[in-house]
Amino acid sequence: MSATPFVAVLLGSESDLEVMQATVETLQRLQVPLELRICSTHRTPVELEQYLGTAESRGCRVYIAAAGLAAHLAGGVAARTLRPVIGVPMCAGSLGGLDALLSTAQMPGGVPVACMAIGRAGAVNAAVYAAQILAVADAALAERLRAEREAGAAKVRAADQRRGIHLADP
Amino acid sequence: MSATPFVAVLLGSESDLEVMQATVETLQRLQVPLELRICSTHRTPVELEQYLGTAESRGCRVYIAAAGLAAHLAGGVAARTLRPVIGVPMCAGSLGGLDALLSTAQMPGGVPVACMAIGRAGAVNAAVYAAQILAVADAALAERLRAEREAGAAKVRAADQRRGIHLADP
Amino acid sequence: MSATPFVAVLLGSESDLEVMQATVETLQRLQVPLELRICSTHRTPVELEQYLGTAESRGCRVYIAAAGLAAHLAGGVAARTLRPVIGVPMCAGSLGGLDALLSTAQMPGGVPVACMAIGRAGAVNAAVYAAQILAVADAALAERLRAEREAGAAKVRAADQRRGIHLADP
Amino acid sequence: MSATPFVAVLLGSESDLEVMQATVETLQRLQVPLELRICSTHRTPVELEQYLGTAESRGCRVYIAAAGLAAHLAGGVAARTLRPVIGVPMCAGSLGGLDALLSTAQMPGGVPVACMAIGRAGAVNAAVYAAQILAVADAALAERLRAEREAGAAKVRAADQRRGIHLADP
Amino acid sequence: MSATPFVAVLLGSESDLEVMQATVETLQRLQVPLELRICSTHRTPVELEQYLGTAESRGCRVYIAAAGLAAHLAGGVAARTLRPVIGVPMCAGSLGGLDALLSTAQMPGGVPVACMAIGRAGAVNAAVYAAQILAVADAALAERLRAEREAGAAKVRAADQRRGIHLADP
Amino acid sequence: MSATPFVAVLLGSESDLEVMQATVETLQRLQVPLELRICSTHRTPVELEQYLGTAESRGCRVYIAAAGLAAHLAGGVAARTLRPVIGVPMCAGSLGGLDALLSTAQMPGGVPVACMAIGRAGAVNAAVYAAQILAVADAALAERLRAEREAGAAKVRAADQRRGIHLADP
Amino acid sequence: MSATPFVAVLLGSESDLEVMQATVETLQRLQVPLELRICSTHRTPVELEQYLGTAESRGCRVYIAAAGLAAHLAGGVAARTLRPVIGVPMCAGSLGGLDALLSTAQMPGGVPVACMAIGRAGAVNAAVYAAQILAVADAALAERLRAEREAGAAKVRAADQRRGIHLADP
Amino acid sequence: MSATPFVAVLLGSESDLEVMQATVETLQRLQVPLELRICSTHRTPVELEQYLGTAESRGCRVYIAAAGLAAHLAGGVAARTLRPVIGVPMCAGSLGGLDALLSTAQMPGGVPVACMAIGRAGAVNAAVYAAQILAVADAALAERLRAEREAGAAKVRAADQRRGIHLADP
Repeated sequence: MSATPFVAVLLGSESDLEVMQATVETLQRLQVPLELRICSTHRTPVELEQYLGTAESRGCRVYIAAAGLAAHLAGGVAARTLRPVIGVPMCAGSLGGLDALLSTAQMPGGVPVACMAIGRAGAVNAAVYAAQILAVADAALAERLRAEREAGAAKVRAADQRRGIHLADP
Repeated sequence: MSATPFVAVLLGSESDLEVMQATVETLQRLQVPLELRICSTHRTPVELEQYLGTAESRGCRVYIAAAGLAAHLAGGVAARTLRPVIGVPMCAGSLGGLDALLSTAQMPGGVPVACMAIGRAGAVNAAVYAAQILAVADAALAERLRAEREAGAAKVRAADQRRGIHLADP
Repeated sequence: MSATPFVAVLLGSESDLEVMQATVETLQRLQVPLELRICSTHRTPVELEQYLGTAESRGCRVYIAAAGLAAHLAGGVAARTLRPVIGVPMCAGSLGGLDALLSTAQMPGGVPVACMAIGRAGAVNAAVYAAQILAVADAALAERLRAEREAGAAKVRAADQRRGIHLADP
Repeated sequence: MSATPFVAVLLGSESDLEVMQATVETLQRLQVPLELRICSTHRTPVELEQYLGTAESRGCRVYIAAAGLAAHLAGGVAARTLRPVIGVPMCAGSLGGLDALLSTAQMPGGVPVACMAIGRAGAVNAAVYAAQILAVADAALAERLRAEREAGAAKVRAADQRRGIHLADP
Repeated sequence: MSATPFVAVLLGSESDLEVMQATVETLQRLQVPLELRICSTHRTPVELEQYLGTAESRGCRVYIAAAGLAAHLAGGVAARTLRPVIGVPMCAGSLGGLDALLSTAQMPGGVPVACMAIGRAGAVNAAVYAAQILAVADAALAERLRAEREAGAAKVRAADQRRGIHLADP
Repeated sequence: MSATPFVAVLLGSESDLEVMQATVETLQRLQVPLELRICSTHRTPVELEQYLGTAESRGCRVYIAAAGLAAHLAGGVAARTLRPVIGVPMCAGSLGGLDALLSTAQMPGGVPVACMAIGRAGAVNAAVYAAQILAVADAALAERLRAEREAGAAKVRAADQRRGIHLADP
Repeated sequence: MSATPFVAVLLGSESDLEVMQATVETLQRLQVPLELRICSTHRTPVELEQYLGTAESRGCRVYIAAAGLAAHLAGGVAARTLRPVIGVPMCAGSLGGLDALLSTAQMPGGVPVACMAIGRAGAVNAAVYAAQILAVADAALAERLRAEREAGAAKVRAADQRRGIHLADP
Repeated sequence: MSATPFVAVLLGSESDLEVMQATVETLQRLQVPLELRICSTHRTPVELEQYLGTAESRGCRVYIAAAGLAAHLAGGVAARTLRPVIGVPMCAGSLGGLDALLSTAQMPGGVPVACMAIGRAGAVNAAVYAAQILAVADAALAERLRAEREAGAAKVRAADQRRGIHLADP
């Protein structure tokens, strides 16, 4: 298959884009090709199936699906593919995203979704996790992931140096 | 359209049948024709769509969908029909059905599901509610619903008579 | 019965009106006649019963009831009618509407309420669901519902076109 | 008014009787006259209103209402009386009584219900609290309450004596 | 006992005063004498006991206790009196008052607290409930409660008239 | 002060003893002297204060308090001592101990309680934590804690050896 | 690297083995080599690090980590590897596994864990998901996954045939 | 050991510093030496272990660890020390800190963490509790704690005097 391998990022609603921008930026920083589509399992189920029907032959290796409320998108994708699906629960509505978290994580046996944290932390982690999956067979990507992890550690170390309080030496 | 109008009762898993038997019995007592099918939005999405593709032309007027955990079945049906869909959250797993309740009730704007109570109460009520919908255009069914409601009241009155404690008259 | 069929929209409090405006607008867009009344199951139970005593003979076919906190309004209506009742949990108070959701969804067997999502999504969906119920016996309304659904899909497709990221063709 | 003052104990369902037996026994031990009735705000609303219409003229001073799931009974009583209403959330269904607790406690301003603990602890306390209300104007009952409280303390002291572990004196 | 009967309103923290002002105003509107004290079961337990040691001989008939987080104040009062105690859970902290609600409602058998709704609705209702308790032996107060209830109903009716939508007569 | 230092283990109810037996056994295994008393902040507040009034002069250095439902015991002790207080939420009632967890953990600023896990894990840990506190100034106890920790690790290692699955060497 | 690629299945406690047996069986059915180890992030952190220090050079490609209560195992593994980590929340304790679910899913940005459902469904899905990850670069495994998915669908279809109720043809 | 005894305050993220400033200030007011470090169990696990490897020999007697979301920091520290560890759940993310509370409190048997309240109240209390632990063997610190407690009481008394409402003397 000569198609470029890529990650499909699917959003249930345009309003998810603000948070999910972090997924796009993280994938791009890791140089992982991506498609981003807005397509709802409830409002545009036909378009969703059409997309799923061709995505893999065009190179899609991993799906990321973000949705809020009764977040069925990731599960709906997982039901129609054997590729790994990563779900990001959005904090829409008034329950702090607990509804989306349970709708995403509590999948029945046989049809897994990898549930990330609610909101921005999950948006970043979906990208990192997709890259970790692809890196199982891509040593160069594994190296970029190592750099990304190290950059995260460096930020913590820098904060520690700026803000830490050290007992005076005796 | 000369097809017999009926209610489609869809279960996400065979294990839902024990509780959902109450739906079948209530519909039968109300003389509402029904089909009961086990088909999972996650495990047999193709069969589900096939069923949905012909159900209405065969006479289906209302759907009842029961599922547990990340209960996507009712929402998946609602995305593919304009007929009223009634969702019954099952108490599978260890969270008491809260996961299924939120996955069923918190549907996004435009694609409603009528969420019933978790478990047996919801199973009975799904049947009653389906009958109430059909009774909007079926006066004989409305009459049977009235009798059903009266029978429920009679049970409470009988319990009250058996078990109530009345102050002695002065 | 020559009365115009209509949907009764009942609010437990004036403060629910801001969110429930979406119900009114959606019903009007679908050309479904409606009455909107503010009457509380706790503060004006007598007025509520008076209303319920005449609504159906005046043409009411479906009730929508919105309330927050210990949301008893939908259940109170359901106890006094055999017409379908749709409940919309409001997000009043500090629990994000979880109190209203449980008070609305967890109805005992025999007296169903169709629980929608908390807040605005539920307000829209209550109107759509009421229309779906009436459309069981109204083909023209069914057609308008189809257009409404298609309009929702079109919005998602437009957002996808504006905001989607497509891999360059090889 | 020469009627015997009494407490009305209302149960939404016969199945609540097992737990609410503790209310009856506690009231009887405190020599508080009581009526116990099974009448559901959802299944027998007419009977409930009939009861409420005469209870106070027959001597009812305090109401205790027990219900599970979407527990509307206490609120429904409170909407129709100015006497103090005590609500006992039952643990029916699969959510541990959280639904009934929120349906009972989260009453809107102006129509209070005194919410007790879920289940048996609440059943006992509803009786004690009703007696505490009546004891505001009944010194003999206040005395019996003191004895009841002391008996509770004595049980704890006895358990402490039987089961406590004391450090040996030095 | 010739002391003026009054209601003691106890706040666990000065920050509760903003919400509990509604309790003071409602009691004053109902002409129920009150004392308001800030005294914490955790920070000033000695002062709390001193207050409880003399309050009843000075005329206290009912206690209202408001606290947030692990709200122990109402329970601490209830452990030291046989007078009715009303608890108002405050929404302090980040859990929306669920912590205070459970800490107030879930009292063990024998030591009841009447739990109201979280926050402002509960603050109003604590005052109304205290008045309902006192009105068991005070017919004039009962009359003022009736007027208060009627005023609440009148507000709903006025809102209904201003904002209701009525179908045109045929 | 020549009194033997000890840990006071306070139970709100005799029924807590079954679970809290693990606290006693763990303290005894660590050779930490203890007193165990059943005394309820709600039912025997006077006895509780009497106990607290003399415990420290008799050698008490740390308190462990276990209670269920609206678990006020640990907070009530913390309000009356400056010694470290450890709270163990019990799983009484039907909410899985969430009520006791929040009532124990969510203490206001200035009056800390060290909240352990719900039930048996918390019962063991309360003993270990009390010992860790005492070991700050007791090197021999620190050594016994090290052995206890090592014994726990050894059990995991033994289980791993019995039940682990190892890939055959190539 | 000539080592056999395998999945490491890590359990925080021997008691998790009963549920996690489903992970082992599913991996074996899919012919995915595995190691199963019991090693606790809290009780044997040194052994855990030792294991993690050599696992990847021995061929480990994916980690599955199961733990209950404050389930830190999956996160602890994720902090020390760049390979994909799958977390399975166990239902230990009395909160139905909600504690483990949140401890597993709510990972901070940069260190993802793929959270599965609580308990048995999650145990099965962890194995399927691990296989899906490996199948990104293993077409034969992808084929076995397809057969596994088909077998799941066949079970649903068989249940449907045995238990479905079909309207008689007209 | 001649090292100055101190409390180590560890933050999982720089963003926790705003709330945890209260810990620093309270420790300083109590004249308890402290070190504050930012080091994440997930992002800088190596640095964390390095710190833990030398802290005690440099004088660390108690650890305070603050983290949000899946808050593993306190547990990670507790797994590597026998000194008392105090955990402060931060309110990061959208669940109000419930995730961090459960991740901190629900530690398995043998490895305790003393869980404080979520957010600022917990930040203050962590400092007070650390001081209470050290005061077991430091009478001067015990005296400063007494003054701190008294200052807290004085604030409540002052608020009571400013804002209390007292019934006029008869």
